[in-house]
Amino acid sequence: MEHFADRLSAAVRRCGNPVLAGLDPRAASLPGGMLPAAQQHDPRAVAAAFQTFCCEVIDAVSSLVAAVKPQAAFFEQYGPHGMTALAEVIRYARQCGLLVILDGKRNDIGSTAAAYAEAYLGAQTAWGADALTVSPYLGDDSLEPFLAQAQATGSGIFVLVKTSNPGGGVFQDYLGSHGPLYRRVAEHVERMAAGAAGRCGYGSVGAVVGATYPEQLAELRAAMPHTWFLIPGFGAQGGSARDVAAGFDAQGLGAIVNNSRGLIFAYEREPFRSRFGPAGWQAAVEAATREMIDQLAADTPAGKLRTASPQ
Amino acid sequence: MEHFADRLSAAVRRCGNPVLAGLDPRAASLPGGMLPAAQQHDPRAVAAAFQTFCCEVIDAVSSLVAAVKPQAAFFEQYGPHGMTALAEVIRYARQCGLLVILDGKRNDIGSTAAAYAEAYLGAQTAWGADALTVSPYLGDDSLEPFLAQAQATGSGIFVLVKTSNPGGGVFQDYLGSHGPLYRRVAEHVERMAAGAAGRCGYGSVGAVVGATYPEQLAELRAAMPHTWFLIPGFGAQGGSARDVAAGFDAQGLGAIVNNSRGLIFAYEREPFRSRFGPAGWQAAVEAATREMIDQLAADTPAGKLRTASPQ
Repeated sequence: MEHFADRLSAAVRRCGNPVLAGLDPRAASLPGGMLPAAQQHDPRAVAAAFQTFCCEVIDAVSSLVAAVKPQAAFFEQYGPHGMTALAEVIRYARQCGLLVILDGKRNDIGSTAAAYAEAYLGAQTAWGADALTVSPYLGDDSLEPFLAQAQATGSGIFVLVKTSNPGGGVFQDYLGSHGPLYRRVAEHVERMAAGAAGRCGYGSVGAVVGATYPEQLAELRAAMPHTWFLIPGFGAQGGSARDVAAGFDAQGLGAIVNNSRGLIFAYEREPFRSRFGPAGWQAAVEAATREMIDQLAADTPAGKLRTASPQ
Repeated sequence: MEHFADRLSAAVRRCGNPVLAGLDPRAASLPGGMLPAAQQHDPRAVAAAFQTFCCEVIDAVSSLVAAVKPQAAFFEQYGPHGMTALAEVIRYARQCGLLVILDGKRNDIGSTAAAYAEAYLGAQTAWGADALTVSPYLGDDSLEPFLAQAQATGSGIFVLVKTSNPGGGVFQDYLGSHGPLYRRVAEHVERMAAGAAGRCGYGSVGAVVGATYPEQLAELRAAMPHTWFLIPGFGAQGGSARDVAAGFDAQGLGAIVNNSRGLIFAYEREPFRSRFGPAGWQAAVEAATREMIDQLAADTPAGKLRTASPQ
């Protein structure tokens, strides 16, 4: 299997934009008719509706973007039925030519970490995704089994470095002799990425860096030349295109920008609500995705991708 | 539902020991006949064998110990089949009167963390356990939804503070103006625990502190009077009864000590291999559990629990 970063790089170039569509299904937000109110607490019904909804989102975005990011928690909330739906969503997205970055924030030590890596990055497993988000608190040795699996299957990981939530800094910004903790995590991630780089120059180990910290994005972009960034926090969490601009390299590569509810539930907010209504929710997903593509093209180096590939 | 720490405290007192039996099933280690070699890569067959094995381990230990700790990763490795088996194992253990601490090391932000909390600590959900292990890297606000769920359902969480693996210190020991990072995490955990204490004095928020760091165990016991410890690293990872002694309070409460493969696969090691052989694997589980109970009674304050309750 080809190197993950090379596949990601080629897919982003082909689509001409760095948008990552987040699949965060929520029972209460599904478009009318997809899940009757009486079934909102029936795990089997919710899981089936999540699968239908996510596959229809995939239909709406698969010709526009390079990758989707299902959020494992929302599927896990509905037990084994939810996890079966997640497997189907991953399978369908890959079948549609999308890269799948599973947001599971897993980790553990030794052979337990290896079990997670096989579960979510295995070539033949139910939830075999192209990449997985991973938490670093357990230390550098906890990341090794994921890297080994990534190298064996052409997959990747994105390690949490600087998250987008208000309390993220409480531990991540803890100031020591080498600067804040996140910088120390960043050094380890960059070292792993440099040691596992593909032809494109980026490694199979990436970093999660929130859109809500533009200055740290710039600092980390400079410090982590081999590390692809997954940037959450755009849209509903307050990050703008200008805020994420510093996450890209000079070619407009090196970062993918996630948006979840801002895209998949666009029909709930203006101007999409008035334009499309609940019945036009899928058209609203497409319109919101195109709007985000345009915003990133206008205000970030990702605009260079657009001129490079005909749309 | 009664407070988690009160339930844990009562269960440990009733059993007269602080042993936590870890359920880490591995296909290659299952006793002969339980999983034919030809089926070791068939997720459905492995999941069924894991369920049988773990339920038989539960039969062997349920009259001896207070709690079991299934490791989610080993079940996740076998996809939705594995996760269905995990639900059955949790259900069976609770039916046998055991507390279930699910080792999932989950976390995320905001409503996503709430989804994990509901998945694993919900009163009516498939994997509803008595407690869940949680990773702190995302910050203090990421822990709040778990605490809210714990208070609503009488469940608990154990936050990673100082893990037992060799590389655990790379980030956890990062030295800042308030000492190493783990101490800062410990301060937050203790504050949450103190604010959510039960009648026994301990809170519904606990901490994971490895047996492989005896000095830090003593330091953290003194600094965290409201925080119950889950201590991994005993046995196969090198921790002894003497190493974990400092984790207990003066009454012999405040800590549970996990052992996974040392108990459930005791039949693979001496003296249990010679005494019981593969056919006697269940008797080996029981004998190894009794041995660990004796070791902790001899060398730690947990010995006081024994005289307090007739066996």
